[in-house]
Amino acid sequence: MQQVEICFSPELIHLHELRGKIVVVVDIFRATSTMVAALANGITEIKTCSDLEECRSMASQDYLIAGERNGIKAEGFQLGNSPLAYLAGEYQDQKLAMTTTNGTLAISKSIGADEILIGAFPNLQATVSYIQSRQKDVLIHCAGWKGRFNLEDSLYAGALVKALEATHEAEDDGAIAMKSLYEKEGHDLKGFLSQASHAKRLQNHNIDSDIDFCLTLDLFSLVGKVENDSLIALYPN
Amino acid sequence: MQQVEICFSPELIHLHELRGKIVVVVDIFRATSTMVAALANGITEIKTCSDLEECRSMASQDYLIAGERNGIKAEGFQLGNSPLAYLAGEYQDQKLAMTTTNGTLAISKSIGADEILIGAFPNLQATVSYIQSRQKDVLIHCAGWKGRFNLEDSLYAGALVKALEATHEAEDDGAIAMKSLYEKEGHDLKGFLSQASHAKRLQNHNIDSDIDFCLTLDLFSLVGKVENDSLIALYPN
Repeated sequence: MQQVEICFSPELIHLHELRGKIVVVVDIFRATSTMVAALANGITEIKTCSDLEECRSMASQDYLIAGERNGIKAEGFQLGNSPLAYLAGEYQDQKLAMTTTNGTLAISKSIGADEILIGAFPNLQATVSYIQSRQKDVLIHCAGWKGRFNLEDSLYAGALVKALEATHEAEDDGAIAMKSLYEKEGHDLKGFLSQASHAKRLQNHNIDSDIDFCLTLDLFSLVGKVENDSLIALYPN
Repeated sequence: MQQVEICFSPELIHLHELRGKIVVVVDIFRATSTMVAALANGITEIKTCSDLEECRSMASQDYLIAGERNGIKAEGFQLGNSPLAYLAGEYQDQKLAMTTTNGTLAISKSIGADEILIGAFPNLQATVSYIQSRQKDVLIHCAGWKGRFNLEDSLYAGALVKALEATHEAEDDGAIAMKSLYEKEGHDLKGFLSQASHAKRLQNHNIDSDIDFCLTLDLFSLVGKVENDSLIALYPN
């Protein structure tokens, strides 16, 4: 049996071995959910940028640019961090450059892994199927919030540990804990998350419909994967 | 209402504000459980040492010395890290110097808090009563395991958040998550923890009876508190 473990913060990633593993980076509200929505709706490639300036400069190379800081669209950017902006399919066959508060950092700190995937509820089962075809250990890397444990990322991690249980054993205490928590709270994610600090922050930005999207399971059959510094969609089946 | 939050690892403590708060340091297997057992059985004062050499040197000042590394009694020490060693009351009115892998580090990294307590299941309710008499915010500082999230410390944290709910609101996502997990798994802590990596390590050292002790609620009515670099017992009632 393969193994699955969870890292709850990019500040703890140095305590985990990356080599040989599939790392699934998770930033549910909203970076990785938005990436999955974009790839499912015509975006061919996503470049993740570490800062706003790098991202802004990609406009000259025919990239759409999406930038967010502290949950709000950054000045001068075409797109913010709402997954809903992509759902009408307005951006067919375009490339996207994107930077976010926590998600981009978690991706860059996952370099060294055998494969890096992007996790979100709307493509959970597709990610599970892909992982189960690969026979590798899995490390779920939660982006967290400013270095701290974050409820929605951790619950996604628990959902993924649960969904992998036929092939992957919970290797560390974090995986055991979050699998159990998801078993208890997974039937009403939104209700449970409404207590969370992050949900309260998001409510301030009037993005209730974003939250609904980010918590919806299995809308898409694609897998988001980092290849040559860009994120692309795979369709395993 | 006051607030309660959880830090899952000493490596994340810099992300939390300590000032003005009661910090409860937790290292269930076994440092803080052993400290509580010692204070309840005649030890008058515990000096926590950052390394084995410092601890060993305390023998010349009439301290009993207890040292453990990676779960095993260190060479040349009178006591290891088993709480059971104190239960016969052999060490009445003696002072103890103690160093452990994770627990001592978490205490030293809690300096700056308004008050530092030691948390363990055998004195949970006493700790709750003391905190509720103080009207301060609480930060639960889990010692973890080599910097990583640890199941037994986190479950104690959840139990404490739950027990404080009349006076303290869960302030961060960690507190919300662990309160819920304790509600689900608290009725059979040993069964749930038997899945954990740490429990597997402890089984290798034949300390099943230590585990039983460490998971027993409310054997003692004392509070363990750091005062002037030493740990002492308070009896609030």
